[in-house]
Amino acid sequence: MANDSSTMSLGVTEFLQLLRDGAPRTRAQLAKSTGLARSTIASRVDDLMHRGLIVPVADAASTGGRPSSQFALNPAARVVLAVDIGASHVTVALTDLAATVLAERTDRLDIALGPEAVLTHVVERAHALLADTARSAGEIGAIGIGVPGPVEVSTGMPVHPPIMPGWDRFDIPAWIAEHLDAPVLVDNDVNIMAIGERSVAFPDVQHLVFVKVATGIGAGVISGDRLVRGAQGVAGDIGHIRVSRGDDVPCTCGNRGCLEALASGPAIARVLREIGVDAADGNDVVELVKHGNIDAIQAVRQAGRDIGEVLTACVSLMNPSVIVIGGSMARVGEHLIAGVREAVYTRSLPLSTEHLAIVPSAATGDAAVIGAAMLAIDHTLSPEGLARLLARP
Amino acid sequence: MANDSSTMSLGVTEFLQLLRDGAPRTRAQLAKSTGLARSTIASRVDDLMHRGLIVPVADAASTGGRPSSQFALNPAARVVLAVDIGASHVTVALTDLAATVLAERTDRLDIALGPEAVLTHVVERAHALLADTARSAGEIGAIGIGVPGPVEVSTGMPVHPPIMPGWDRFDIPAWIAEHLDAPVLVDNDVNIMAIGERSVAFPDVQHLVFVKVATGIGAGVISGDRLVRGAQGVAGDIGHIRVSRGDDVPCTCGNRGCLEALASGPAIARVLREIGVDAADGNDVVELVKHGNIDAIQAVRQAGRDIGEVLTACVSLMNPSVIVIGGSMARVGEHLIAGVREAVYTRSLPLSTEHLAIVPSAATGDAAVIGAAMLAIDHTLSPEGLARLLARP
Repeated sequence: MANDSSTMSLGVTEFLQLLRDGAPRTRAQLAKSTGLARSTIASRVDDLMHRGLIVPVADAASTGGRPSSQFALNPAARVVLAVDIGASHVTVALTDLAATVLAERTDRLDIALGPEAVLTHVVERAHALLADTARSAGEIGAIGIGVPGPVEVSTGMPVHPPIMPGWDRFDIPAWIAEHLDAPVLVDNDVNIMAIGERSVAFPDVQHLVFVKVATGIGAGVISGDRLVRGAQGVAGDIGHIRVSRGDDVPCTCGNRGCLEALASGPAIARVLREIGVDAADGNDVVELVKHGNIDAIQAVRQAGRDIGEVLTACVSLMNPSVIVIGGSMARVGEHLIAGVREAVYTRSLPLSTEHLAIVPSAATGDAAVIGAAMLAIDHTLSPEGLARLLARP
Repeated sequence: MANDSSTMSLGVTEFLQLLRDGAPRTRAQLAKSTGLARSTIASRVDDLMHRGLIVPVADAASTGGRPSSQFALNPAARVVLAVDIGASHVTVALTDLAATVLAERTDRLDIALGPEAVLTHVVERAHALLADTARSAGEIGAIGIGVPGPVEVSTGMPVHPPIMPGWDRFDIPAWIAEHLDAPVLVDNDVNIMAIGERSVAFPDVQHLVFVKVATGIGAGVISGDRLVRGAQGVAGDIGHIRVSRGDDVPCTCGNRGCLEALASGPAIARVLREIGVDAADGNDVVELVKHGNIDAIQAVRQAGRDIGEVLTACVSLMNPSVIVIGGSMARVGEHLIAGVREAVYTRSLPLSTEHLAIVPSAATGDAAVIGAAMLAIDHTLSPEGLARLLARP
């Protein structure tokens, strides 16, 4: 049975993957690219068109009167739900299969309210967005959710998340399944930001590291076109790598000298308070820097150097071509990146930095939502996702 | 033309990839798994059997008299050439398509003799091994070569290799092509050791880091089943990451405090000489440790801690499930690994080390040759490699 559906969807998946680039193709091109028989192609095209998954596209040089012979994926065929759950906010968006946002809503909500309260809010917002856009829940191809902690991707469960009280091993997909009938993909927020950033700003880059600098520090690593998740799904957790100057600074993890204890928003604010500058948190640091406070600028630049020291190891290990600095602290502008560049270019071997770009996030606030949408779209157009769609009337 | 051959080989590749696991399959199973028409399957099976790439396998419950209906990849159908070029040795091996070594020869040869001298030796040895095994050069599916330096994998050229004088940007594939008619794949020696180690000892592990500790220190990183090469192919070059205790130690790269300047074989020997112990190089260190010299044991353990400090960053970034310690210095045994474990388990977050194994190399001397063979076999059975085979009479 499982074999049957995967065999059946093999050609269909290839169609839709081919068509996903937006370029229309003829039946003959589909036959050639998939290696399937012409008769199979013809019946699948009819079937997919009947289901609205592909649409006819006017021929470039139509002679008029003849029916169109080219087809493309219909981005409006399904929607996906993209959810970005932060420490103190929830963004829910509805996008089409090209990741174009159809409707979006952000609310302030404390993640410590626990999974049921937060996910109830997500489901309510989802229904409201569906209503606003006149779409139905049955049209949701998949749901992508980012959360601010480590996730066991195979089950969609947060695992020992430090800032998500009540969420440890909570079965997010099972809970959602009781309210919305669509596959649920859950991943770490920094991972989905990396996916979103790449999709928006670097579609052709194969080796990218996205660093989120905010209340915590984490990285999403894309290598050879794929997200590096690691054996337990905690790859990219760079906040607790030791920094050379930080030996005496205690970290929430129980060790000392961790990057997060020296270079996160709260850590920079602490450094400033120690020299008499009034800074309660990372937001205050950003404001101080924007107003030209020299102490704040120096502290941010040093934080950049600390982040750069850790990224030097990352550069040696992964040899990325782009490092993106994002997260709320990236709003301080060039001062943070200048420190990162200083450390990375001083300490790395020339070959690995010759073509390395270290840049601020282009997607900024949208990276997470677009990344969550991409997760959901990839699943919708995967063999498994398509088998589900095709099993429906 | 390119499109035609890739389309034609699509089904063939799928056949052979399916059959590569050694399990025999029927025509019906092949049709089901590939989605190709029965008639296509039948003609391809005949064609591949005619070419000797697949062989009939006796049915488990044969009733006698009926022709066999099952087929498997014929590992003897082609050979590959596996070459491990080290700083002072060259190993050339001939293996079948299951990476079983048919003949092998290692000679001492200084890489500083330059590419033409070393590769001339490789070609001569290749012809000798072919003669010894009564195979012909035309049966070589591909040639895999590992070299001790960074390689631009797309062109097979070493790039700024520090210990390979005369090899910078030397076109190894083009030179070989004038003497042997087979595709040439060149990669860094540590990368091929990682591939070989995984193939021998950890076939089911998806996230593995192989660390070579010898005259230099480098890592081969496998993530999600694939080698991480990075944008310039220099991923895994961990020897020049800064170690916290090493600020005053100069490194050959021009920086100070690099891992390689503290924990390589020559570095440990230098430390021992500074305290009056007679050790010219890493081999002497290994002998001293084997004879129970306390100073040598302590120096090796500290080198292990330094390596562990760098691997802590690697664990946070990649979340591997296995770290393998290999290379000539691994012959010191448990003392080196004990230092690595001490540092990694002290400094890493529990979630990333809960299921992490840090182990000595199981493949040891064979890792490089088997890795080079795997590179060549993968290419031989790739669409491109198969198109080449099928284009021949």
